[in-house]
Amino acid sequence: MRLGVLCSGGDAPGMNACLRSVVRAAASDGHDVIGIRRGYEGLMNADFFDSELGVGKMSPRSVSHILERGGTILNSSRCPAFATPEGLKVAADALDRAGVDALIPIGGDGTFRGAVALAEHWKGQIIGCPGTIDNDLLGTDATIGFSTAVATAVDCIDKLRDTAESHERLFLVEVMGRHSGHLALATALAASAEIACVPEEIVDAVAIAARVQELRSLGKQSIIIVVAEGDEQGGAVALNEKLSLADCPYATRTVILGHIQRGGSPTAEDRVLATRLGDFAVRSIVDGATGMMAGETCGHCCLVPLEDTFSTHRPLPEHQIELLDRMSC
Amino acid sequence: MRLGVLCSGGDAPGMNACLRSVVRAAASDGHDVIGIRRGYEGLMNADFFDSELGVGKMSPRSVSHILERGGTILNSSRCPAFATPEGLKVAADALDRAGVDALIPIGGDGTFRGAVALAEHWKGQIIGCPGTIDNDLLGTDATIGFSTAVATAVDCIDKLRDTAESHERLFLVEVMGRHSGHLALATALAASAEIACVPEEIVDAVAIAARVQELRSLGKQSIIIVVAEGDEQGGAVALNEKLSLADCPYATRTVILGHIQRGGSPTAEDRVLATRLGDFAVRSIVDGATGMMAGETCGHCCLVPLEDTFSTHRPLPEHQIELLDRMSC
Amino acid sequence: MRLGVLCSGGDAPGMNACLRSVVRAAASDGHDVIGIRRGYEGLMNADFFDSELGVGKMSPRSVSHILERGGTILNSSRCPAFATPEGLKVAADALDRAGVDALIPIGGDGTFRGAVALAEHWKGQIIGCPGTIDNDLLGTDATIGFSTAVATAVDCIDKLRDTAESHERLFLVEVMGRHSGHLALATALAASAEIACVPEEIVDAVAIAARVQELRSLGKQSIIIVVAEGDEQGGAVALNEKLSLADCPYATRTVILGHIQRGGSPTAEDRVLATRLGDFAVRSIVDGATGMMAGETCGHCCLVPLEDTFSTHRPLPEHQIELLDRMSC
Amino acid sequence: MRLGVLCSGGDAPGMNACLRSVVRAAASDGHDVIGIRRGYEGLMNADFFDSELGVGKMSPRSVSHILERGGTILNSSRCPAFATPEGLKVAADALDRAGVDALIPIGGDGTFRGAVALAEHWKGQIIGCPGTIDNDLLGTDATIGFSTAVATAVDCIDKLRDTAESHERLFLVEVMGRHSGHLALATALAASAEIACVPEEIVDAVAIAARVQELRSLGKQSIIIVVAEGDEQGGAVALNEKLSLADCPYATRTVILGHIQRGGSPTAEDRVLATRLGDFAVRSIVDGATGMMAGETCGHCCLVPLEDTFSTHRPLPEHQIELLDRMSC
Repeated sequence: MRLGVLCSGGDAPGMNACLRSVVRAAASDGHDVIGIRRGYEGLMNADFFDSELGVGKMSPRSVSHILERGGTILNSSRCPAFATPEGLKVAADALDRAGVDALIPIGGDGTFRGAVALAEHWKGQIIGCPGTIDNDLLGTDATIGFSTAVATAVDCIDKLRDTAESHERLFLVEVMGRHSGHLALATALAASAEIACVPEEIVDAVAIAARVQELRSLGKQSIIIVVAEGDEQGGAVALNEKLSLADCPYATRTVILGHIQRGGSPTAEDRVLATRLGDFAVRSIVDGATGMMAGETCGHCCLVPLEDTFSTHRPLPEHQIELLDRMSC
Repeated sequence: MRLGVLCSGGDAPGMNACLRSVVRAAASDGHDVIGIRRGYEGLMNADFFDSELGVGKMSPRSVSHILERGGTILNSSRCPAFATPEGLKVAADALDRAGVDALIPIGGDGTFRGAVALAEHWKGQIIGCPGTIDNDLLGTDATIGFSTAVATAVDCIDKLRDTAESHERLFLVEVMGRHSGHLALATALAASAEIACVPEEIVDAVAIAARVQELRSLGKQSIIIVVAEGDEQGGAVALNEKLSLADCPYATRTVILGHIQRGGSPTAEDRVLATRLGDFAVRSIVDGATGMMAGETCGHCCLVPLEDTFSTHRPLPEHQIELLDRMSC
Repeated sequence: MRLGVLCSGGDAPGMNACLRSVVRAAASDGHDVIGIRRGYEGLMNADFFDSELGVGKMSPRSVSHILERGGTILNSSRCPAFATPEGLKVAADALDRAGVDALIPIGGDGTFRGAVALAEHWKGQIIGCPGTIDNDLLGTDATIGFSTAVATAVDCIDKLRDTAESHERLFLVEVMGRHSGHLALATALAASAEIACVPEEIVDAVAIAARVQELRSLGKQSIIIVVAEGDEQGGAVALNEKLSLADCPYATRTVILGHIQRGGSPTAEDRVLATRLGDFAVRSIVDGATGMMAGETCGHCCLVPLEDTFSTHRPLPEHQIELLDRMSC
Repeated sequence: MRLGVLCSGGDAPGMNACLRSVVRAAASDGHDVIGIRRGYEGLMNADFFDSELGVGKMSPRSVSHILERGGTILNSSRCPAFATPEGLKVAADALDRAGVDALIPIGGDGTFRGAVALAEHWKGQIIGCPGTIDNDLLGTDATIGFSTAVATAVDCIDKLRDTAESHERLFLVEVMGRHSGHLALATALAASAEIACVPEEIVDAVAIAARVQELRSLGKQSIIIVVAEGDEQGGAVALNEKLSLADCPYATRTVILGHIQRGGSPTAEDRVLATRLGDFAVRSIVDGATGMMAGETCGHCCLVPLEDTFSTHRPLPEHQIELLDRMSC
């Protein structure tokens, strides 16, 4: 068989590890892999990766020493033109001309929406791998990149805690997550933040200010509030303004972590997850599956229909907001 | 209620995070916590932690800023004298005199064996928390400290790969694990090692040498072999000697990672796990449970009888040795 | 003798290492150390650190395991009220009442201005230690905290490079430095940034845009521009707006690193520097010196009058802007 | 001009950064660079690096994104055959046939001895760059790789301190350094080790044991002794045996850091130093210099005759052994 692989949407640490796994799993089973550069945009342009095996082919050697590197050697893109009937047809033709039997798109919900649309114009098999720092897909306990993004945010907040303590300040730290508070909540728990603001829970600024007063009375020298960018408070800067109108007992500072969370060498968890899922995607294709995402639940690899992965946002882990609250005493 | 907490056996990153969680979960529910220093040995000596709340009491403030620190502020020990009828009676008396209603020992299989023995001499409740880098306990998907130990080993091997590549060498890297290959296997997968030697699988040195020859012919500039200290080959140094007798096509070097794997700031995964399990242990005690370990399976907190956790060694994750093999091509 | 020590102004990694060194150098020579909390504000309020040696005393044990921690266990502050004749008199009286013979303030130019003013109202000896991430003081090759702040910024940009490459973008990264480009320039060189914008050099946005065009034509997939917050362009956000008016051949993103740069465990360089200077400050006091800063030049500890340290901004290292330019080809 | 560049001897973090600097400094000045693989051995075999510019040529793009990577993309080797009259002649011929006008060897004392010998058989210019983790060369305040090796060792000891404290143990940690204690001493100071054993100072095991007793009486929970592999005590394992014969008041453990110290992404200090020296080596060649090492002293680039760099071992920094002693109280 000839497999195509691409990365699409916001890049996530571990995409390279997943690529490597796809290439090596295929090679060890005797299949070819065509690397498609720059996501769906590159697919439309037949923009292929070259290696010593020849035009478009990814050899096992061409993915040496990428497991530990952030980003993606195939590059990624967001491509609105792809999601049109014309775009999809162009892409399907490109796949056919390259002799691709099956496609493995690595990305998040936008990538999988694109894959579902492509399936209506292309007869090959499609198995997606969940590569996104948001951890908002149903059908997998974790997405590739989430562990690393949490680790990066926690590392930053560990540093901020030092200066927050020194100056007895309150820091509002904005992490990524437009629709989902997974990253914010896990970061808050792991970084011993006192408060997390997530899109899934509505809390007004007055209640937050009251909680901060309470924490002050408990003797807290410093406070960290983790704010998901998509929180209804409007992000860290907006929340800071609201807090300043209330009677906040700490001097405050705001930090927006931004794209730092997308980079960096993946954690061991992301490396293992990416390796397992890339391999499982290849084996699923060989087994004839299509229209599915390769995920991991309860330690086992599993397939779930692509449509289901983005049908609703994955709910936050139960009880963890209450847990954060109990820990802030 | 009055809860006692102690750390016992080999220390693991995240023990402090677990301690903090126990203390704060108890405090937020109105219970006292007595910190017992130096594990079971300290228990026999009534060696208690002091805080501003008074002798023996751990206040929420006394566990500030320990979540991110390796080791344990309560200290740990191994104590053969405890596991005698006399020792257990001394310990039970010490708990009674201190007015302790329930005990939370944090540790591994040896710690839980001790807890089971203690339960025959003491009427209070006992809920254990799994703190060990070995990840060899049944009843929990991961133990506190495993994620960090893997991360540390992977970080070391990433560095070794640099010099292995520069000099085109083979490195044998020994990681901890006397009876269990969990740490070795996860490390090997995450560090893109070519080969893992674990106690659970018997492979002879000749087969390893043949595999190394094969990898050389694939064009590998360098090779990393991760060896669990308890592997039947006898560890990295012994395996190196055997390889040198075979016709190894690489110059070799040996590194024993040793106690480095026990230290360091815990990963986000270990911090969250430790926080969840410490909290769950306290709530389980309040609910009347005893003789159980607080574990996490499939994302949910759960209780499992202490005896079951060490009844057999937890098996290696299915298919991952084959996965490592497929990735080394 | 009885020495007082305090941290003032923006905190810097390594302040704790310097504190530890002051306390232990004094103890090993038989002198007492009074820890003054919250900088000059705490001095005015006679806000002293307690240890097991008694009120206000810092024992060698009280500084155990702080060398590796960011921030300062004495806390820091900025205190305009100190810099008034009344404030200085209050502070001088507090020092006299506490029996302090000599003061070691750890901080930057503002701290040393305060120390010079205090010297007019207080007869004790004063030796400053340079603790600031800005590296803008004359009389020392490096300030305590600079190495760590550069390391943190470089680590962040290494991560940003991953995502910049994946999406073929230009990132503008703002680092601290209101009046000084030391941090920006060292970060840019170490992080292989293509361009650095520093307060010491005037470059207009049109020239930067032209340079970016040129780099594009050389085949650069991504561009990193490091911008000192005090650059005349107005920081990263303002420069981004100007670039967007020119014809920038890359999609751009902006990241403001902010207070992350102030925290974190100090680098080995900062730990050694802080240890040397704290020790040297104590020995200089014993030798009778006053009104000086303890610095390090060409590997040797030296004293320089406090006034001289902030008389002009320390110039950027020669030729390094040209070096950055040569490296971006 | 046509410049040749190679890495030789034990690899050091920052060699890649130095390579990049040589290539880009040359390119920005219009010169060609030939990359010679595998050090002097590769030179004898005319084993050249290829890039898109053609056989043997290193283009500015071929050194993209290597500044931050440990090891060396040119590989390194130790080659006794080179240091023979025949070997030197073969190498000189290879350089002439490749049209190389000047050679930049990156390495340590062995590399520079080779360069001096080569100069007797080859008429081209030679400027060395100091790439070694040992920091034992005269003529430069620091060698490329030293800062990173110290950082790695300190990071490991920070982890070991966690477990040493938990179990109240003494750890003997062996670092590299056959003839030189620079790495051991800087590591000890930065990692707050209590004792350092270096080849430059003779201390017997009895005196060390007595010092350990004294430290115990001061209340130290744990002890770290950093041992240079070349210390006259025979390394960490041998010293441990001697201590166990004396009456050591702590349980002891031994860790040999080994090759981990050679790898890893270089620190900012090593990246800047390597960048400066690679550039300076190129400019020195253009200016006509030969037979010299490019070093940095007191912040300025400088040239020193190659013979002088290894004439004696660079002495340890003054007073730092006493400083370590004062800090351990």
